[in-house]
Amino acid sequence: MQKVQYSKGIAPYIPFFYVIWSDDLLSASEIQVVKKAIKEDDSLSNEERKILANWLDKGNPPKNTEVKKWQQFITQSKAKLVESEIYPLETFSQKVAKGHKIDVTENNQLQYVEKTLGIQPNHYNHLFNVEVDRQIDSLRFEPKFLDEILYGDKLSEVRRFRDFLKHQDFKWTIHPTKEGAREVVLKQLKNLASGGWGAYAYPEEYGGKDNLETYAAIFEHLMFVDGSLAVKFGVQFGLFGGSIQNLGNSVQRDKYLSNTGDTSLLGCFAMTETGHGSNVRGINTTATYLHEERSLVIDTPGKYDNKEYIGNALHSKMATVFAQLIVNGQNEGVHAILVPLRDTKHQVLDGVTIEDNGYKLGLNGVDNGKIWFSQVKVPIENLLDKYGGIDENGNYKSPIKNPNKRFFTMLGTLVGGRICVAKGALAAAKMSLTISVKHGLRRRQFNDSIKIQEDLLIDYPTHQLRLIPKVASCLVYHFALERAMYEYASNKDGDKRRIETQVAGLKSIITWFSSQAVQESREACGGKGYLRENRIADLKNDSDIFTTFEGDNTVLLQLAAKGVLSDFKSEFNSGGFASVLKLLGNQLNDKLTTINPLYVNKVDSEHLYNHKFHLHALDFRLRRLTYTAAMRIRNYIKKGMPSYQAFLKTQTHLLEVGKAYSEVLAIKWYYEKTRSITDDKYRDLFFQIGSLHSLNIIRKDAEWYLEQGYLGSAKSKAIRQRIERLSSELRPHIGSLIDGFGIPEHLLTAPISKDW
Amino acid sequence: MQKVQYSKGIAPYIPFFYVIWSDDLLSASEIQVVKKAIKEDDSLSNEERKILANWLDKGNPPKNTEVKKWQQFITQSKAKLVESEIYPLETFSQKVAKGHKIDVTENNQLQYVEKTLGIQPNHYNHLFNVEVDRQIDSLRFEPKFLDEILYGDKLSEVRRFRDFLKHQDFKWTIHPTKEGAREVVLKQLKNLASGGWGAYAYPEEYGGKDNLETYAAIFEHLMFVDGSLAVKFGVQFGLFGGSIQNLGNSVQRDKYLSNTGDTSLLGCFAMTETGHGSNVRGINTTATYLHEERSLVIDTPGKYDNKEYIGNALHSKMATVFAQLIVNGQNEGVHAILVPLRDTKHQVLDGVTIEDNGYKLGLNGVDNGKIWFSQVKVPIENLLDKYGGIDENGNYKSPIKNPNKRFFTMLGTLVGGRICVAKGALAAAKMSLTISVKHGLRRRQFNDSIKIQEDLLIDYPTHQLRLIPKVASCLVYHFALERAMYEYASNKDGDKRRIETQVAGLKSIITWFSSQAVQESREACGGKGYLRENRIADLKNDSDIFTTFEGDNTVLLQLAAKGVLSDFKSEFNSGGFASVLKLLGNQLNDKLTTINPLYVNKVDSEHLYNHKFHLHALDFRLRRLTYTAAMRIRNYIKKGMPSYQAFLKTQTHLLEVGKAYSEVLAIKWYYEKTRSITDDKYRDLFFQIGSLHSLNIIRKDAEWYLEQGYLGSAKSKAIRQRIERLSSELRPHIGSLIDGFGIPEHLLTAPISKDW
Repeated sequence: MQKVQYSKGIAPYIPFFYVIWSDDLLSASEIQVVKKAIKEDDSLSNEERKILANWLDKGNPPKNTEVKKWQQFITQSKAKLVESEIYPLETFSQKVAKGHKIDVTENNQLQYVEKTLGIQPNHYNHLFNVEVDRQIDSLRFEPKFLDEILYGDKLSEVRRFRDFLKHQDFKWTIHPTKEGAREVVLKQLKNLASGGWGAYAYPEEYGGKDNLETYAAIFEHLMFVDGSLAVKFGVQFGLFGGSIQNLGNSVQRDKYLSNTGDTSLLGCFAMTETGHGSNVRGINTTATYLHEERSLVIDTPGKYDNKEYIGNALHSKMATVFAQLIVNGQNEGVHAILVPLRDTKHQVLDGVTIEDNGYKLGLNGVDNGKIWFSQVKVPIENLLDKYGGIDENGNYKSPIKNPNKRFFTMLGTLVGGRICVAKGALAAAKMSLTISVKHGLRRRQFNDSIKIQEDLLIDYPTHQLRLIPKVASCLVYHFALERAMYEYASNKDGDKRRIETQVAGLKSIITWFSSQAVQESREACGGKGYLRENRIADLKNDSDIFTTFEGDNTVLLQLAAKGVLSDFKSEFNSGGFASVLKLLGNQLNDKLTTINPLYVNKVDSEHLYNHKFHLHALDFRLRRLTYTAAMRIRNYIKKGMPSYQAFLKTQTHLLEVGKAYSEVLAIKWYYEKTRSITDDKYRDLFFQIGSLHSLNIIRKDAEWYLEQGYLGSAKSKAIRQRIERLSSELRPHIGSLIDGFGIPEHLLTAPISKDW
Repeated sequence: MQKVQYSKGIAPYIPFFYVIWSDDLLSASEIQVVKKAIKEDDSLSNEERKILANWLDKGNPPKNTEVKKWQQFITQSKAKLVESEIYPLETFSQKVAKGHKIDVTENNQLQYVEKTLGIQPNHYNHLFNVEVDRQIDSLRFEPKFLDEILYGDKLSEVRRFRDFLKHQDFKWTIHPTKEGAREVVLKQLKNLASGGWGAYAYPEEYGGKDNLETYAAIFEHLMFVDGSLAVKFGVQFGLFGGSIQNLGNSVQRDKYLSNTGDTSLLGCFAMTETGHGSNVRGINTTATYLHEERSLVIDTPGKYDNKEYIGNALHSKMATVFAQLIVNGQNEGVHAILVPLRDTKHQVLDGVTIEDNGYKLGLNGVDNGKIWFSQVKVPIENLLDKYGGIDENGNYKSPIKNPNKRFFTMLGTLVGGRICVAKGALAAAKMSLTISVKHGLRRRQFNDSIKIQEDLLIDYPTHQLRLIPKVASCLVYHFALERAMYEYASNKDGDKRRIETQVAGLKSIITWFSSQAVQESREACGGKGYLRENRIADLKNDSDIFTTFEGDNTVLLQLAAKGVLSDFKSEFNSGGFASVLKLLGNQLNDKLTTINPLYVNKVDSEHLYNHKFHLHALDFRLRRLTYTAAMRIRNYIKKGMPSYQAFLKTQTHLLEVGKAYSEVLAIKWYYEKTRSITDDKYRDLFFQIGSLHSLNIIRKDAEWYLEQGYLGSAKSKAIRQRIERLSSELRPHIGSLIDGFGIPEHLLTAPISKDW
């Protein structure tokens, strides 16, 4: 083969040009970066500048024969690529030149190009026929700093909790039978209580720290131990204890809350009925007031009106039972009552029937059961009467006059639980991704026949694309949920309608995302992912139900959509046009923006990576979907259709409104957090992560954006390419990112996540 | 409220017009249908014709006040809608008129409109404020005829097998421990063998019926019993027995095949290694030939070179072991050898080490294990030498000279197993959908406050959209796999490259589809879907691994893509342009078609429901993706990049080629089958099902079609609407369709699939 020669100035540019022209992504602004470098590089003669500039013309790209010569020049140099260098490509370039006996020194301009264009070794380590000294992680980012950013001022308590979980009781093992699993989980629960972790969200006088946000982080971490433990913990301290804390009076709190926090009183939360899964307002259990005895009679009227899937049902002494409260023959709506289930010897009390729900897909360490009540009498003192009670004369009274508002205020106490469920799902995603990414950083597969070592799984583009955007989404959703819990915790007694809408939406999109992330992780680990010892199997089965419980996602998204639409409500009823016209005005503004062909096909990376573009696109979608849904409903109603039917006819549309609302909320909150990061390097990283997530979300609805004319073909394609590119740019940091999730080593027991 | 009046001719048209204008889907061709009816309706005066025609102008639609009047006219009639009428809307129209004391009779023209427009009661039963007599199933199609269409000439044997499964041994129960589950499954396996079902695919002289197609249907039905049983059955009779049948010689068949078929010899199939999951060619186990002893020494060289996930490993006496065959110091590539594992007392033999794989996500009734061999000696007679053996002089000989071709020929025997895996996955989808649809046909939820009965789940548009297109896809994939098995079975000894490519692709898309269908079914059943008693949980966990085993989907799709690209191969090497130009010509033709704005925005239902449009769109995608992938690879290679790296850089693109290829193949084969159905009514039904599936597949890649200019915005939106519409059109038949899957009642044990 003929020996290829280049001049001293040009030689170090050859690897850069080869990389640039092997890539499909060279945008106009990127060409400007290289041009600037060439201009300012003093080591170049004017003649050399001209040659290099010629090779940068996108309209007239270098001939294949030229590009092939570059490749030969690189190969013939016998240079070795060392990925761990600070500027691996620039250092490699020096070596290539030196291999051809051309004496060159460090080139700042090329370093500038390498940094500015975000060229990563894994973009080009396949391209040269040279020896490569691989580096699995760039070590540019420190997991412990990431952990600090993720948990903020909660971190010291979170770390104390992680240490607490080193206790051997929390060591993960397989318990094939539900009886065995339940015994272990009950023991763990009591252990947590004795450490003071269960009462964390309660007021200090009841053994707590009055800190709901750290409580949620504790809940999240329990998913790393065992999904059953997290759920059992949530039922005992969050749902049962929370119902006493939030719906009860001070006498009830004094009597029960400390005992709940230390598990001397085990309780359950009996809301759902077999016949009424998602329709709490339609439950049939009744609590009828008997004035002469000042008592309530709890009763399950029909065969399918029993309480269903009640966690802790087999271990509990008491239940918070939701029932229709009947006073003087009038139904005052759903209220909560404390109903004893068992005596001190754990015998079920008269009139109460409890059945085991049996084996489930997952969470077999949770004792779910069905409960029937047959004319069970409890004193009026057991009515959790903060929002509605019965006075001494036997009359119903409530601080909230509107029954509808009262109902939603009571249910508003469930919002904290919904945030925890989303956090639990996200924890399952984080842990599954941690395991699958660690596996991908160790496992090698196939190879080029000439190479001895097979490639790392994570270095396959398809593998990057299936895992890295999901790691990015975990971080976005993490901050969204942190913010949601902050908003909820700091406004516990105010109007919860807004946060309820927000949480309904976030819970839905995040639990669905997590299901997919866990599934993708399982598949990315192949057969190893199928073995229970590697943990993903249990995370998958345990978190699967999170899309259903504490509110079915489909139902919750409609709730969110109705929240979004509520501004239109008056219009539907009154026929007034003011609010519609106002929105219509905004729509017209969008149209003006999107009709601009420069915007519609703007494909440079500055634009595509700009969070303003992401927020604009997502917000545009939300507003347009909301507007069209409102118009459709309005038109149906104008034609005489009852509003329930009009909503039904737009049901699939409303789900999209709910999703769009939630995605834009998550990203907005994420970027607000990102802007507050003070360290430049880390802030840039989080913006990059935000870009990957946002482009991925936009890409999922690309057909809609194209239909609307908001995206042009070129831009839509560019977004797809940028997702691949960003995934590869984050590849060198992926090990640090997953370690930054902060899952303690002692809980990461999966053998495939270790070196082997 | 004022009483609304219409003339005698117009009155019966009012409900039709109300339905039509409440719907967003009235296309030009549909307006023509109504116009024709009006023209030919003798009961109308010319004046009435004019009024009705006026109401059909899309450019100037009836005012809301008018439409509202129609609604009032309907409500005031106090007519009752009876869905079970042959022409429910036309009959209802008569009643509406009669309610206003207008004397009308049956109207053939309105019947024609109702039929031609495909108006279903569930399109409008919500629209009128009238009493509705619901009908859950239209009973228009008979499940047993559907069953005949699905199983064709195999049906009598399939039915005999279904009856065989009535034996109490096959009754589904929960076995929490793997030991308990394995014991039951082994007993069931022997029971099947004694019924002659295991040997079904073997030649008659070995107790079989030489019928691979029926064998595959048996395998599929075993998924309805238990996933573990299906897999254990596949390992014993398909993989182990199949290796003897297809890779062995007649002496080996005589010695082992009958015993395998009656389970007196239990065997396993030891191919996969821990270190080499998907890369069979890279396995490290060796079989070294010792000429002096005429024996082979089987050896596991390294710690991670053990055989992994080997089904039947704990029950087997013998294994078909894949190893690198070393003859005279030369590696002749991967070959299969029969290696005894245990003695008659079930003691593991010297040099063999077997470990239980432990608990898995699912399939815990299958005894998967790891196997190590330490210098285990077997006679040369144990080499399955159909495609490569060692002669008396100790020299390697093979009827296939090219080692590459030899390797793929041996692996070609796995194709049958891959079809079975896809069939097993699809069976899990069918059963899950059967359960979730039956649940949706029984379970009621929420309601309009004025109605007493809550709506059936299946009557929610979101519920229809999540389940009905998946039922349609099950039918499409069913026929695709029937055809694949036919092609494979009828060409067992010929060139298998084509069918291998086809099956690699179909296995991937169908197992992924099934995972989603099972997941959707679980969620559609809410908490009930999470209980193991309702079966979906086990179907989910058991079939989850089907995306990985018998070839990881990501790897298989690349295999399929490379098959598709093979026409280009010579071009890559030689630089000749002929084949590229040929394809380029086709591309240009596509461009001419797609540039036609009439085609790009053709939204009438005739066009969108036409299978020619579906096939054209899917084929267009395949060809364009193939062409662009080929061009990208070619360009990389021209720039000097090694071909392995060029493929790697286009990896995500190639996955899309593989998927596109498989989808178009499935639909093509489906429509070929559909055209052969002789009964008009059923053929129409299957075309309708094909439309729903095809539009759904096209819709999933809508952003790509829009980017390419193949679809215009209006058409893309229309496709989305048609998917919803077709789902609702199939809604009245969904009960018949799932019953048509033929899952026997005695295996459908889920309590939620029964009346409750």
